[in-house]
Amino acid sequence: MLYATPTNIILASESPRRRDLLSSVLGTIQISRPSFEESLQVGEAPAKYVERNSFGKASSIAQLQGPGPWIVVGADTIVVKDGLVLEKPKSQSDAYQMLKSLSGGCHQVITGYCLLAPVGPAVIKHVVTQVYFLELSDTLIQRYIDTNEPMDKAGGYGIQGLAASFVEKIEGSYTNVVGLPLAQIVRDIEEIDSRFSRA
Amino acid sequence: MLYATPTNIILASESPRRRDLLSSVLGTIQISRPSFEESLQVGEAPAKYVERNSFGKASSIAQLQGPGPWIVVGADTIVVKDGLVLEKPKSQSDAYQMLKSLSGGCHQVITGYCLLAPVGPAVIKHVVTQVYFLELSDTLIQRYIDTNEPMDKAGGYGIQGLAASFVEKIEGSYTNVVGLPLAQIVRDIEEIDSRFSRA
Repeated sequence: MLYATPTNIILASESPRRRDLLSSVLGTIQISRPSFEESLQVGEAPAKYVERNSFGKASSIAQLQGPGPWIVVGADTIVVKDGLVLEKPKSQSDAYQMLKSLSGGCHQVITGYCLLAPVGPAVIKHVVTQVYFLELSDTLIQRYIDTNEPMDKAGGYGIQGLAASFVEKIEGSYTNVVGLPLAQIVRDIEEIDSRFSRA
Repeated sequence: MLYATPTNIILASESPRRRDLLSSVLGTIQISRPSFEESLQVGEAPAKYVERNSFGKASSIAQLQGPGPWIVVGADTIVVKDGLVLEKPKSQSDAYQMLKSLSGGCHQVITGYCLLAPVGPAVIKHVVTQVYFLELSDTLIQRYIDTNEPMDKAGGYGIQGLAASFVEKIEGSYTNVVGLPLAQIVRDIEEIDSRFSRA
């Protein structure tokens, strides 16, 4: 393994993309379905919202754990277009509206993540990536919706899937758009892991 | 399929990453091994070099084709650090030197691509992506080399593999770093494809 983390890593997320990202470099990780209801509060800043969600997910799992050593990872990813938060589309026409609004312009993908461990302070951060879409024709948007890829993804697209062909460029972490800012989170996990060896 | 290109697409590259990128959105494509010797000329600009290579690869395949319709895709990807071109490492110690030089700083990944068809002018372009690496410890570099991932990749790393955890951020096309600027090349392929329907 690339990183020698002896600690039990518990991902408080059922996203297969997050699982694949983390396990690709950390090896076997545990998956737990968090019990936490996401709901945007009136006037809440997007970055604050994803951080709060990531903490809510992580703590719902952390409180079930024994003395450790373990690290629970919570995360939440949203797409923000002109200040408006786009989560997973509720319908095909919802997906159409989202993709139409992203066409030919720039939007932000924000992932909040939270690391909880039985020793030391919580890590709660967010990472922003700017994403630039080419113009998408109505035909292309419709074909894309027909593939069903948009339906379970924030903002109605998967950058690691067919929508890779929509993205002219990004500024920031690519894996952050997929669901976790991998480089950043791995460094934080290593830092927390060193707490246990010091303890 | 997301893009309805009736034309036969022939990829003049044996890179499995390029094949996967193109076929993910275009469906079945043909693969042909190009006969072209890459060699950097003294004083040649990196962008010029990859464009020349992409043309050399594409034309070695195009000249074997019949009247068409077909589009041959050639491409070449290099990593540039402080003006120095890094291609595939020739040895483990070569890989070590490359990764050490990329650690904690910014470098450029340049992909040149060339599209040849039996009608209309050739498309020859290059796309640059800035890549920012976190600091890599010697231990981490050595562990990474031990995985064997660096050996067949320009600059000694694969952004779509374990080295995803080295990349703090990028500016530009992500798929360009993998081996093909997918959004750009698909638009160019569609444009060429429309030549055939007009013909």
